[in-house]
Order: sequence, then C-alpha cells, then structure tokens
Amino acid sequence: MSIAIAIDLLQAHFGERLSVANSVRDAHSHDEAHMTPQMPDAVIWPETTTEIAEIARICNDQGCPIIPWGIGSSLEGHVVPVRGGITLDMANMDKVLAIHAEDMDAVVQPGVTRTRLNEELRATGLFFPIDPGADASLGGMAATRASGTAAVRYGTMRDAVMALEVVLADGRVIRTGTRAKKSSAGYDLTRLFVGSEGTLGIITELTLRLHGQPEAISAATCAFDRLEAAIATVIESIQLGVPVARIELLDALTIKGFNAYSGYSMPERPTLFLEFHGSAAGVAEMSETVNEVAASHGSLGFEWTTKSEDRNRLWKARHNVYYAQKALRPGATGYVTDVCVPISRLSEAILETEKDIADTDLVAPLVAHAGDGNFHMVLLADPTSDMEAAQADGVRARLAERAIALGGTVTGEHGVGVGKRPYMEAEHGEAWHVMGDIKRALDPRGILNPGKTVPDN
Amino acid sequence: MSIAIAIDLLQAHFGERLSVANSVRDAHSHDEAHMTPQMPDAVIWPETTTEIAEIARICNDQGCPIIPWGIGSSLEGHVVPVRGGITLDMANMDKVLAIHAEDMDAVVQPGVTRTRLNEELRATGLFFPIDPGADASLGGMAATRASGTAAVRYGTMRDAVMALEVVLADGRVIRTGTRAKKSSAGYDLTRLFVGSEGTLGIITELTLRLHGQPEAISAATCAFDRLEAAIATVIESIQLGVPVARIELLDALTIKGFNAYSGYSMPERPTLFLEFHGSAAGVAEMSETVNEVAASHGSLGFEWTTKSEDRNRLWKARHNVYYAQKALRPGATGYVTDVCVPISRLSEAILETEKDIADTDLVAPLVAHAGDGNFHMVLLADPTSDMEAAQADGVRARLAERAIALGGTVTGEHGVGVGKRPYMEAEHGEAWHVMGDIKRALDPRGILNPGKTVPDN
Repeated sequence: MSIAIAIDLLQAHFGERLSVANSVRDAHSHDEAHMTPQMPDAVIWPETTTEIAEIARICNDQGCPIIPWGIGSSLEGHVVPVRGGITLDMANMDKVLAIHAEDMDAVVQPGVTRTRLNEELRATGLFFPIDPGADASLGGMAATRASGTAAVRYGTMRDAVMALEVVLADGRVIRTGTRAKKSSAGYDLTRLFVGSEGTLGIITELTLRLHGQPEAISAATCAFDRLEAAIATVIESIQLGVPVARIELLDALTIKGFNAYSGYSMPERPTLFLEFHGSAAGVAEMSETVNEVAASHGSLGFEWTTKSEDRNRLWKARHNVYYAQKALRPGATGYVTDVCVPISRLSEAILETEKDIADTDLVAPLVAHAGDGNFHMVLLADPTSDMEAAQADGVRARLAERAIALGGTVTGEHGVGVGKRPYMEAEHGEAWHVMGDIKRALDPRGILNPGKTVPDN
Repeated sequence: MSIAIAIDLLQAHFGERLSVANSVRDAHSHDEAHMTPQMPDAVIWPETTTEIAEIARICNDQGCPIIPWGIGSSLEGHVVPVRGGITLDMANMDKVLAIHAEDMDAVVQPGVTRTRLNEELRATGLFFPIDPGADASLGGMAATRASGTAAVRYGTMRDAVMALEVVLADGRVIRTGTRAKKSSAGYDLTRLFVGSEGTLGIITELTLRLHGQPEAISAATCAFDRLEAAIATVIESIQLGVPVARIELLDALTIKGFNAYSGYSMPERPTLFLEFHGSAAGVAEMSETVNEVAASHGSLGFEWTTKSEDRNRLWKARHNVYYAQKALRPGATGYVTDVCVPISRLSEAILETEKDIADTDLVAPLVAHAGDGNFHMVLLADPTSDMEAAQADGVRARLAERAIALGGTVTGEHGVGVGKRPYMEAEHGEAWHVMGDIKRALDPRGILNPGKTVPDN
C-alpha cells in the first residue's frame, strides 16, 4: 500500500496523461497564496468521470492522496499536496455540456472557466454572474464556495450551483440535486459539496443557474472623505432594498495603486465602485436613489461610466486590483485576508484593523465587497524581514479573532485550505468536529485533499 | 435500555411538562397528511437548549426515538412517531430573541410561527417572506426546507436560514453559520440541517434573513383559456428577468372551489395570481411587462387588486386554497402531491398527469408555484373506495416517476417524511445512501426521528 504503487497502477492506463516530471510537479506545487510549496508525486489529466472513479478506487486502495486542480488560483493553499499524492488537473474536462436557455441553466465540466462559460452564453441573452478575481475554473469555484463583486445581487456559488456529479473517495459516482429550481427531497448534498474543497468528493460535473443579461447597465464611482461615510452609504442603500448589482469599496491606498497600475487618475480617497442592472428606468431609479443616499453622507458625487467599453475597462481594472495593490510595495510578500462580518460592524472591523496596522511597518491596502460585509486587506511585508512576517501574522490573527467576535467569519469567499484551518475551531467550536465526522463517514481513509479544511481523520 | 426507562428518567426533571395522557399523545400522533396515525410514548415541552441536550443524552443512552414537533402542519407524516418514542413539542420555545434591523436578520426560537415573527417585525420596516400555507413554526419550516408563494422572488428556507443552533443525538450543542452574509469557512452545516427533517439534530435556535417591506405592492389575477398559455406567460416573464414576487397558477377546478369557499366569482378558468414588490415606478413597469406578455399569450386581462385589505383577502384565500379544494368533494380523502420540474417541462408534467387522472374517478384540482416549476394536485378520493385509493396511489407513483424523468424532484417543498421516502432511491440513486452514511455518522444509534427521510441505520 503506497503512493508509488498507485502511480505504477495508473501509469499503465494514463500513459502520457500522467507525469512525474519535476517541471510539471513544480507547476502544481502551489497556488496563488504564500504557503510553502510542495510537489505532488504525480499529475494526471483525466478526461472522463469513469477515469476519475478508477483513479479514486486505486488511490483509496493504496492510501494515496488525491488533490483536484482547476487552474491553481486558490488563495489559501488549497491545492498544495501537503501529504504528497496525485494531483488531478481538470484542464481536459473543459466542455460546456448543455445550455438550457428556457430554464436558465447550464451543465459544465469542472475545468471550464467562468469567462469561457460567459463566452459560450453570449448569444443566449444569459450570463453567469459569479466573478472571483481570477478566471477560475467552475469546479474550483464550487469547491471553495467562491463569490466576487456581484454576490450582493446574484449570490455566491452556494446559490449558483443547482446540481453536481461527484466521485466519492471509494470511486462511487453520485448525482446531487436536479434541474428543478427547488427541492425538499432530503439532505442538501449539493450545498454540502459546495465549499468542501475537494475533501469530500471530486466534482466532475456542475449544473449552474444562469441569469438574464440585463437590459440596461450603468456604472459609477463615488469618492468620500471618510471610509465610514462610504460604508454608511452601502448599509443604507441595502436597507432601502436597492438591488444594486455591485457595490465595492476601495480605500485611498488601493486607489493610489489602482491609478498607478491602470492609468486612472481618481482622487485618492475611499471610493465606491457601483453597478446597476435592470430596465433602463429601473437602473435610472436605483442609481438616483444611491446617489441621494451618498450625497446625504457627504459624497463627492457620482462619476458615471456610460460606455460599455469604459465600464468593462473599469471592472477589469477592479478585478486586477490585487496586482495594483502589490505594486504599492514592489517585491513585497502579500498576505491576503478575507473576513466577512455583519454589515453593521463593517466600519468597526476595518477601523480597528487599521489601528493594528498603524503599529506595524506593513503597507495594507483594502478592498471590500461592502454590500456583503466582506473585505480584503492585503498585508504587504518585506520578505527579508522576520519582524514584518511576525507583524503580519499578528495582524491576521487579531483580524480573525475580531471577525468572530463581531459575529462574522474568518473567510467570506476564499475558503479554508491550509491558511485558515488554524482558525476553524475558534469559529465553529464543536461544529468543526462535526465536519470531521462527516469527512470520516465519506472518506474513511482520508485520501481526498488531506490536511485541509477539516480535522484530520 | 428502553423507551420506558427514558421516560422515567425524564419525568423526574420535567414533571407536568411531560405527559403520557392519551389525549395528548393522540394530538401528537399525526400531522396534516393522510398517513396512519401512531402515538408517541410521551410528549415533553422543553424550554431551553440545555433541557433538550439533556433529553438527547438520556434518549441516546436508552435508544429512545425523539420526534421534534412544531405545530404539526407537515404534509408527509414527518412527525408521526413510527417507532414510538418521545415527541418534543416546541410550543414553549417561542421567543423572538433578537431583531438586528441594520443587518436585516432576526434570531428566533424554533416554536415561533411565521406570522408571529412578521407581527414582531411590523414596526421595523422588515418582513420575513417565506409563507407555506399553514402558520407553521419556523423550526419546522427549516426542518422541511419549506417555501411557499414568494419563493420565486425571495427563495426558500434554504436561503432564509443564516445560522442555527442544533442539539445533536448525543447531546452536543453546536452552532452552524454566522450572521455574516456569506462564508467559505468549511462545510455548509446550516444547509445540511435545513431539510434534514429532525433526523440529524434538533433545531433549537434560528438566525433568519429578513427583507425590507416593499415601498409599493400591487396584485392582480389574470385568467386564460388554456393552462399552457398561463405557463408560457410565467416562463417568458421569468426569462425577461421580471422580479415578480408571486406568480401562482390555479386551474379551473381550483377556481371553482376558491369561488365557493371564499365568496369570489372569478371565471372558472386557469388563472394566474400575481404580486409585484418594489418602488412605485418599478411595480408599474413590472406589471405592465407581465400584462403585455400575458396578452401576447391570449390572456383575458389583468384584474387589479389595489387596496391592501383586498390584496390581503385574496392571498389569505389563496393560502387556504387546500380547504377550498377539499370542499369540491366533501368528505373525500385528500392526497397532496408536490413535484417540481424545470419550468420548461411544467406544462408537459401537468397535462400528462391530467390524462392519468381522466382515467380515474378522482377529482384533482391543481395549484402551482408556477415560477418555480412546483405544483400541487390534490387527489380527492372517496375514503370508502379501495379502488379510488389504488387509483390515487397509481397517479402519485406515475407523477413521481414523471417528475424524475423530466429532470425534477418528487418534492418541491413539503419534504420526504414517510410519504416520499419510497421515491428517494429512484430520485437520488446512490446519493440516497450517502445521506444514510451522514445520518449514521451524526446519529449512530438512530434515535432522531427514525424511519424518515433517509435509509435506516
């Protein structure tokens, strides 16, 4: 029983689609996070569910870890093979299997990326709204319960995934959910696998809820003198029931990087990036309402982005904001944070953390999915300074404690992986061990992405 | 080890709050469904989570079944103690613990009913939108993943429940979820317990998402000559992205009962009941759009209900439609059905079932949450006729098969309980056994509402 035997057994079937080359293993040794890389023992490119079921059976027999891999854009070390084993690269499972325009759903393989799906949907009048920064694979997005800038209106992968095909640790293939819009037929296995980060099963097919492309879209930016005023605008707009499609907050420091990196010249102040979707009249009404709310909180006024190419440029720059933030301190290590709190506590959570940061040498720009109460501070630390690394660890630990104390969560959308696992017991208490009970029931030998998310078996 | 010992041990603590009286046990022997009643061995009225944890520990030691009870309005025999044991009546756990208006959530005990919560919310400008026919308890609604007439806009209990406190079979108390709007912190235990029908844990506290009371509401009815035209109107309105708050379909037979029971005099034709929520201008725009769509499908025109008392009367009558339907054949047994299919298949599902019914002696009025693809036909059968009972069984079995074949589910909102359990393997295949694996992991002795929902331990 060993990883080596598993690889031998699989090599016969997969031939060139299995690699033990160092360059290939190295490319699969890390994601976008700062965790220590570790190479898998082999990488396989499966092409069918049947092949994945066979891999699972062999690996389960041999106690060989399996790490599913989308495009490697995760942010908490989710795909680092911390116990070795075989990485399943889903690059060849990249087919859009069906688009049911009348029912507004699509069936895809896990390697399809979010922008690929939207390209395929363009002619249908439909779109898929979930947009993490990276052009992530839809399988990976489901596995990490990803969201992004439009979650305030369209929800997260929790809401977007209607049904799944999943290969279990022992090679059984199951289907969860249906194409019906709702069901009360027993345990919600779909929602159990969404966010399970490859630790309960391998997602081999997804049925996704789509939305109609809005008749009208308008976008604006709106600067404020004070962060609290921007957040008050967000809270009040949401309480008024304005179905804003995007309402993102960038702090003055992030705007500075944004300007430098993307060629804008916005005032370096806390700024909301807004987008409205609806009918022409609906969009006009929504934006007027939010503009009035913003004005009542002392905003410096809406700057409209009316042309669609300008709007696309703005949001593309917003999606690349992480690189703009990193450019504020070239060469620095970026520690990404991701807490989410009830929106009434968002100002407090941010301002207290800024106080922590003021006591350090770190540079820490902020971007928030403000309508969800979710914010990311990137802690930019000198990679040669042990002191700054310790400062970053301290700030992150206090931020996690603060999020939990305020009734929130240590990860709004990035997931647990390796990075957030130390905080799970503090957030969930005994419920974390219940997650472990479920893991043991479905993966008794602990071969599925071990060392992540839940307690060890 | 026995039920009798468990009752003895509990009697010492609960005194008058434990009853073995026949009248009390009889009142807890059935829900609103037609299943054979069976009495629990005792009924307890707990008042705290700590008490429920103590009950669980004792019952787990003694192998004594526990059946959580809200108000007994379930429709698939969920609360029938098919293996005896102790029913936990949550009537005394009826406190609204907190309303966080700024974050738009509320924390409640499981015995609070949906209308009670809305009464408490009236002054806040917020409301709770999920409305099954009965004034059900919120704990029961979470346990069955209930929805109702507004799910097309506001979602189901899956979407409404943000966090739970749950007592496990062994008496451990866990908290799932947080008050943050989203999280990627591990397995979605909240969604696992929602819809688990008391078989995985006992819900002792719920945090619920609220919505702003709309600035404007308008309601209308709209008759059609043909059912298919009404459904085409629904599909097209949803594809156009009109965020209609309610879009319910009643067939000609149901309208006949509705008129007789509620004193209306609507044309006895397939009829949509519609409601729009939004700003005054938004509501006007939405209703105009749907009116145009309906006209293009040959509707007989919108009948507006402008006054709020008239609107409330209309929806109250809609909520009581089950009694109106039963009045079509006084004394009949009503077999309720609840399939949900992709909306593109809704006409087909209904019309094929009507053909089945035409071959029987049954009277079968229909109401549909058409925007969700969910419909209920009540099969009214002569209780003295074995032939009609067999006909009803046949129609229900074919309807379940049809829903699955069309990519749907045998229960859109009522749940599994005893009644839908025979169809679970057909709908879920191996995934049903995975539900059983999870049940065994969390309730190894099988004391929580045994004989329901999932395979036996």
